[in-house]
Amino acid sequence: MATAIRTPFFTPTATTAAQNQPLLRLQFPPSSKRRNSFPSFSISCSSQSQSQPQSQPEPEPLRQRPPYIPNHIPDPSYVRIFDTTLRDGEQSPGASMTSKEKLDIARQLAKLGVDIIEAGFPAASIDDFEAVKMIATEVGNAVDENGYVPVICGLSRCNEKDIQRAWDAVKHAKRPRIHTFIATSSIHMEYKLRMTREQVIQKARSMVAFARSLGCQDVEFSPEDAGRSDREFLYQILGEVIKAGATTLNIPDTVGITMPSEFGKLIADIKANTPGVENVIISTHCQNDLGLSTANTIEGARAGARQLEVTINGIGERAGNASLEEVVMALKCGGHIFNNLHTGINTRHIYLTSRMVEEYSGLQLQPHKALVGANAFAHESGIHQDGMLKHKGTYEIISPEDIGLERTNEAGIVLGKLSGRHALRKRLEELGYELKEDQVESLFWRFKAVAEQKKRITDADLRALVSDEVFQAEPIWKLADIQVTCGTLGLSTATVKLVGDDGSAHVACSVGTGPVDSAYKAIDLIVKEPATLLEYSMVAVTEGIDAIATTRVLIRGDSNQTATHALTGESVQRTFSGTGAGMDVVVSSVKAYIGAINKMLSFKETPSAEKIPVNASNVS
Amino acid sequence: MATAIRTPFFTPTATTAAQNQPLLRLQFPPSSKRRNSFPSFSISCSSQSQSQPQSQPEPEPLRQRPPYIPNHIPDPSYVRIFDTTLRDGEQSPGASMTSKEKLDIARQLAKLGVDIIEAGFPAASIDDFEAVKMIATEVGNAVDENGYVPVICGLSRCNEKDIQRAWDAVKHAKRPRIHTFIATSSIHMEYKLRMTREQVIQKARSMVAFARSLGCQDVEFSPEDAGRSDREFLYQILGEVIKAGATTLNIPDTVGITMPSEFGKLIADIKANTPGVENVIISTHCQNDLGLSTANTIEGARAGARQLEVTINGIGERAGNASLEEVVMALKCGGHIFNNLHTGINTRHIYLTSRMVEEYSGLQLQPHKALVGANAFAHESGIHQDGMLKHKGTYEIISPEDIGLERTNEAGIVLGKLSGRHALRKRLEELGYELKEDQVESLFWRFKAVAEQKKRITDADLRALVSDEVFQAEPIWKLADIQVTCGTLGLSTATVKLVGDDGSAHVACSVGTGPVDSAYKAIDLIVKEPATLLEYSMVAVTEGIDAIATTRVLIRGDSNQTATHALTGESVQRTFSGTGAGMDVVVSSVKAYIGAINKMLSFKETPSAEKIPVNASNVS
Repeated sequence: MATAIRTPFFTPTATTAAQNQPLLRLQFPPSSKRRNSFPSFSISCSSQSQSQPQSQPEPEPLRQRPPYIPNHIPDPSYVRIFDTTLRDGEQSPGASMTSKEKLDIARQLAKLGVDIIEAGFPAASIDDFEAVKMIATEVGNAVDENGYVPVICGLSRCNEKDIQRAWDAVKHAKRPRIHTFIATSSIHMEYKLRMTREQVIQKARSMVAFARSLGCQDVEFSPEDAGRSDREFLYQILGEVIKAGATTLNIPDTVGITMPSEFGKLIADIKANTPGVENVIISTHCQNDLGLSTANTIEGARAGARQLEVTINGIGERAGNASLEEVVMALKCGGHIFNNLHTGINTRHIYLTSRMVEEYSGLQLQPHKALVGANAFAHESGIHQDGMLKHKGTYEIISPEDIGLERTNEAGIVLGKLSGRHALRKRLEELGYELKEDQVESLFWRFKAVAEQKKRITDADLRALVSDEVFQAEPIWKLADIQVTCGTLGLSTATVKLVGDDGSAHVACSVGTGPVDSAYKAIDLIVKEPATLLEYSMVAVTEGIDAIATTRVLIRGDSNQTATHALTGESVQRTFSGTGAGMDVVVSSVKAYIGAINKMLSFKETPSAEKIPVNASNVS
Repeated sequence: MATAIRTPFFTPTATTAAQNQPLLRLQFPPSSKRRNSFPSFSISCSSQSQSQPQSQPEPEPLRQRPPYIPNHIPDPSYVRIFDTTLRDGEQSPGASMTSKEKLDIARQLAKLGVDIIEAGFPAASIDDFEAVKMIATEVGNAVDENGYVPVICGLSRCNEKDIQRAWDAVKHAKRPRIHTFIATSSIHMEYKLRMTREQVIQKARSMVAFARSLGCQDVEFSPEDAGRSDREFLYQILGEVIKAGATTLNIPDTVGITMPSEFGKLIADIKANTPGVENVIISTHCQNDLGLSTANTIEGARAGARQLEVTINGIGERAGNASLEEVVMALKCGGHIFNNLHTGINTRHIYLTSRMVEEYSGLQLQPHKALVGANAFAHESGIHQDGMLKHKGTYEIISPEDIGLERTNEAGIVLGKLSGRHALRKRLEELGYELKEDQVESLFWRFKAVAEQKKRITDADLRALVSDEVFQAEPIWKLADIQVTCGTLGLSTATVKLVGDDGSAHVACSVGTGPVDSAYKAIDLIVKEPATLLEYSMVAVTEGIDAIATTRVLIRGDSNQTATHALTGESVQRTFSGTGAGMDVVVSSVKAYIGAINKMLSFKETPSAEKIPVNASNVS
């Protein structure tokens, strides 16, 4: 029932297109590793007015990212984008990522130009702590020639231990931030915290001060469930944390219940009534439970918020968060409504970032997801009968190129079995992959093997291969060979040969209800690690019967692999995903399972001494 | 990479729960076939205020669906829900449905209580015409004891031939409606229609009058791309079509570019400035290109629209439409903002309707889709560690039960191999399936076969089996047997035995790049119908290695199977989906392919005499 990816119609545009345009370099500061590309023209939202549709869009005035000062933005129409894909997004059921995956995404977020990366909740587990520290150290110090480097933020509950852990993880960044929160709605204070209003204020004030006392100049405070909190109480606690040194006040609609006009009024009220608010940045954080998170977020910006918390693809717990791509493009397209607010986002990196997050989180987008779904730019007419529409603007308000998509039939580059290393490397670079020499080499042999059987190797094929070859956990077990017999007439039987990291080969066979079942059982006989298969899915990434199939599995290991949930304080069991690609669905399924097992085996167990107390209110 | 369904945690609630509560029967008129169930309590949106969280929600006052009069609603706070899943939704790439599937969905929409069903675009093809006619005849005459029966609507471009076709299809309903449209934005008039403003007004006026002249008392008119149309021109053309007899004016934001405040103002302006507007209903139709369709729709209602056009799951071209479930629940939860507007929707049927549309359209929802996504009510904490949260309302604003979900661990019914026919039938009824005796019988044998191999048969398993056994196209080809050998060591080989509708058995074998490839090639050797495989995907519906895998494929047949696209007038090639379920992934894949082929073979080809001219402006 899964909807397969229909991307063959589009491919990410070359990220190198605008590198040689020094005039534009001022607009979006590139990361240190490679220069950012950015649109050499403004986003082509079709106008509301009756202007001539064929007239060229006015080029946007050059708008620079203002210098970073924690509690002040020199440009009043600049809006900071705070990405919490790695914290709130990773909290989605089944979206656990390895440190390597998180680092990849953080690098991509820096290319995208987000102002702040919330890299995780360091107190959740040792793995979470180390991922945040690694991102702070690497991505948080990659200052580019224009001085841009993302702020690296760590979440913490309102207790000293959490805040200390967060600081120990983020302090390695050039611009570290601690984000601490405590619930302020009656229902949360009464049933979750079991604290009075006065206790909550006291805790918030003292913990913000504690964070500052560690040497952190950039402290964000969130009154959790602000959407349902008493207004007067909100003004009071926010005024207190400002006095204690908070530099950003984030207003979360934690349960996603507010209407856009209401949320705008909440932000306006806070701006109007909180003592000292002129010295801090107001931020939004909108959940999507009623499908209103994008609207609420942009209404917040209209009302004066200058930091917007979002995730790539809108992932997150329950119905997720406001999505970065929707919020950024809505601000652009609604410029006439929003007094031309602007962000530092290089929209041409949206598509590749979206694909990477989809891949690593395993949260597949519905085809009608706005902007980045497979159908977002593909209406029936557009697909099969290009050129029948007399003017592109009749049904398209944003060019796919603006978010880094390019129509394949315009791109023209298709690889085949005669293509060499150079062509492969070039296309991979254009697709946005930065691969090492040995990675390209191993990919090349895989590519040739596929090209032997398949005439045209599309971008989607290449992405599947990169994902399968390069973006895998450190292999502990490797598939050597597999042989399967199955069908309606007899018992399914699989024989599997795996090679361990010590080079030893192991062979096992098993019967099962089908080829995958029997193969997985044979693997279990060799690996001897208890794991429960939670999900199994497969899509063919390309058209045609000779397609490459990508399998994804999600497994749960034994009970010692846990993390602490930031909001509820509960201990949550980790799950591990694996993907595999191949032209044989059974082989692809087996690779995915081995990948997930390797990921599970690479996670450290949380030693009992490190376990974090469950209830924030019990810790001071 | 597809995300598998995580529904084992929830199951649709019994639809029979509230049948014996005559007091409530007034609220939502049930359909004639079965009595509607509806909440015996109000939707439990957590309040914005600081009211006691544990206090019982105030029961909503009994609110009746007002009698149906095309151009007037006696209750000023009643909002009509116009569902266009079968027209705009079915226009999504790859979402073609058979007439039987459309009829199933229309029946379900009637249970849900939608006011108007847009059943299709009858001029698109013979199949589309017949589907609309069948729905008009069956669903459009199933008047319930309270007088409720959905209006059945057919779309038509502004030309006599389209309108006549629409009328011929819908006139069989008790309450037929013709919906005609013409573009009114400069860009559309100039580049698509090549008509002047005066020509467009003249065409709109004369075609609305023509529709009325056929005897249709209920005519809806849409100025396409209203969001980008000149205001004064809009008031003028809308005033003219009111004079010509239009009863509903639908205002589409065709390209999804307006901001919520703007769209609200558009509706308010039309209400304030259109001559004669007090005698008609204003309607919204919001596309989701920037993720703002739900917000725009509810802002439209706030500004005075009393019909909202939506689709189940928000499906539709590009980024889709406003979703019924989000709009209806947002109106409920935002009642304090919207002056307690109400609809006739029985929200407890939302979940099953959503699943049916997901299944038939093949447009799989992302796990974080608001309200109906797999994670919408499942946060990590909730899943694994029930009861650790001290109050459900801390993170849940709507009870899953309100939309027809029930937590499995509360439901308690799990079937196993000792369960008999009675238990199976009972659970199927509770899941909302109305099956015939022979369908239950064939399902029972399938159920027993699975139960032999799998300890617990969950609701998700049952849904997969129902979908596989019952909701299939008329079988032309049936799978008798299959035998496969594959792996990394040799050539994949498949031998397939199919039985045709004349009872003859055919056997073929083929090699291929994998087991599915070789099996599909063997099938092609027997069926001898050219088909291109467009998509292939598979998910395991349940946890555990012994899961049932459901495969979905999408194929495209030869070029004579076309339909006319309503908006662009282009001829679009049809695609056909098929699903198959089984514990063996290869068998499940083969069943899906045969299902799609059967569906393709059952579609009539469009004879050339029936072909519809491409450009609306060329037809009068």
